[in-house]
Amino acid sequence: MDKCTRLKRRACLAALVAVVVLCSVVGARAQSDPLPSWNDGAAKKSITGFVARVTTQGGADFVPPAERIATFDNDGTLWTEQPIYFQLAFAFDRVKAMAPEHPDWKTRQPFKALLEKDTKALAATGEKGVMQILAVTHAGMTTNVFAQSVRDWLATARHPRFKRPYDSLVYQPMLELLAYLRANGFKTFIVSGGGIEFMRPWTERVYGIPPEQVVGSSGVVKFQIGADGKPVLMKEAKVEFIDDGPGKPVGINRFIGRRPIFAFGNSDGDLQMLQWTAAGQGARFAGIVHHTDAEREYAYDRQSKIGKLDKTLDAAAAGGWTVVDMKQDWKTMFPDSP
Amino acid sequence: MDKCTRLKRRACLAALVAVVVLCSVVGARAQSDPLPSWNDGAAKKSITGFVARVTTQGGADFVPPAERIATFDNDGTLWTEQPIYFQLAFAFDRVKAMAPEHPDWKTRQPFKALLEKDTKALAATGEKGVMQILAVTHAGMTTNVFAQSVRDWLATARHPRFKRPYDSLVYQPMLELLAYLRANGFKTFIVSGGGIEFMRPWTERVYGIPPEQVVGSSGVVKFQIGADGKPVLMKEAKVEFIDDGPGKPVGINRFIGRRPIFAFGNSDGDLQMLQWTAAGQGARFAGIVHHTDAEREYAYDRQSKIGKLDKTLDAAAAGGWTVVDMKQDWKTMFPDSP
Repeated sequence: MDKCTRLKRRACLAALVAVVVLCSVVGARAQSDPLPSWNDGAAKKSITGFVARVTTQGGADFVPPAERIATFDNDGTLWTEQPIYFQLAFAFDRVKAMAPEHPDWKTRQPFKALLEKDTKALAATGEKGVMQILAVTHAGMTTNVFAQSVRDWLATARHPRFKRPYDSLVYQPMLELLAYLRANGFKTFIVSGGGIEFMRPWTERVYGIPPEQVVGSSGVVKFQIGADGKPVLMKEAKVEFIDDGPGKPVGINRFIGRRPIFAFGNSDGDLQMLQWTAAGQGARFAGIVHHTDAEREYAYDRQSKIGKLDKTLDAAAAGGWTVVDMKQDWKTMFPDSP
Repeated sequence: MDKCTRLKRRACLAALVAVVVLCSVVGARAQSDPLPSWNDGAAKKSITGFVARVTTQGGADFVPPAERIATFDNDGTLWTEQPIYFQLAFAFDRVKAMAPEHPDWKTRQPFKALLEKDTKALAATGEKGVMQILAVTHAGMTTNVFAQSVRDWLATARHPRFKRPYDSLVYQPMLELLAYLRANGFKTFIVSGGGIEFMRPWTERVYGIPPEQVVGSSGVVKFQIGADGKPVLMKEAKVEFIDDGPGKPVGINRFIGRRPIFAFGNSDGDLQMLQWTAAGQGARFAGIVHHTDAEREYAYDRQSKIGKLDKTLDAAAAGGWTVVDMKQDWKTMFPDSP
């Protein structure tokens, strides 16, 4: 028996053992709840009901595994987005960290306002100011250097209110939902207005979603041969694609090439993704996370500057979409936290 | 026992049976060749040697399955690209099919030349002419309508030399290679200069590569609410991204977000993808399909208009990449054909 044969036999044996163990676990836990952080109620029922329908072989609503595409917004749907988008908090922190190398920032807006914590002056620089901050923190470096800056920030930065790492402010019920869908043959994707390069360094670790299943906004990237003869990808200060609003179905089409059968969002930036998902043929699920819990997280919707949920709330009512009431529907908010 | 439990037990039982069957098949076929259409030789050996190294647990070159990303060019690497790129053949056939609805084409270039089979006049319209032909055949319709036009064409069109459907002119040895890599935990991607929307309707059926693992060139797509209130995605006559040459590592970064450890191409349009792959840390495989078989397929390289292989052949020699000699290395060319 050659080495290859031995290896294959060993792999087979391992698979056999794994399935036997799995079967006994399933036998023991079959009655257990795959969504323990969800209170019993209409939202939970609509999720489990949908999954049962599309996975029942021979049923009218059965969907083959290859077509079980589920897309999730990130900010406000999988993790918190208040008091500011976490990517903006990252950019602000990076400006502070980079300031010593840029003495001119002390006298140059929007950097001056940011460094002096002059929120009024910072706000006055408007969208242009934000773009300048994103340019210096997200461009002019290789993709590898940028990814490392994201990882470093997550390891050290703390959320102003919760005093926890930003990547611990992910919703426990949504983590369970992602795992539950995957256990039922779904492929889970992020479709976010946030930066694709900002999310990829940590989505696999935190959500179990690999880089190739992350869709997001992006800047132009250029291939270059470096001084050492090695190729690098340089991030440029030029917007390439905004994966928000009507950009979301476009991003889904571009990156995934199939229409989702299941989508979750939390703001008007998700309206078109939810419309596109809901309009497909066969069973469809469109869900909204409604932030109703000021005590454990935040409460906001129609008038909010960040995560405005207005038209989409009306569309949900008209379309019979599932609206999750955080306060009522979620037993737990964050992992290891009530 | 509730329905869910019964279903899970049934799924487990099915998995158990599948593994037992698989193990007996592996036992019986363990000695059999996963690449039967490849002649024994340096190319085959370098492929199987690489796969053995990166999949040997505990070995110095072991790569976890999540990072086993393999990327393949399409035209000339997975299927034939002569006498013209098949996507162009599709566009030409579409112009002919659409001509009755466009009487002005009889007197308008480049359409006039195409309809009159005046290749000289057609060539004289140059790149501008090609773009006009692509515009009318690839834009001004929904993504669904376009995908259907591709499927219809594949079902009816025949290659001028081989008199076979275009999607049967795929290389049997490469089909085996794709399957072999997947059986070893690789995720296989197409990274092609061809149109992403042109490939996705058939890559899963033909190559076993799902739409979400196809990277290619693209035009702008817009989200619209149709007259019936239903959302559609409209294809516009505007280039968005050219996934060729230095665009390939950019496309890989955008769509996959990880550097491949294995890549295959056949022309100078693949140079940067191969450089990017080869320059990563750890074991890497860079391969080239060298068209050396005028009898069974085509023979071309450094001077060819289509699929020019010049700089990349030099880079392969310098970098110790694997060059597949079609004539020598491939026992079979196409499925069901010598």
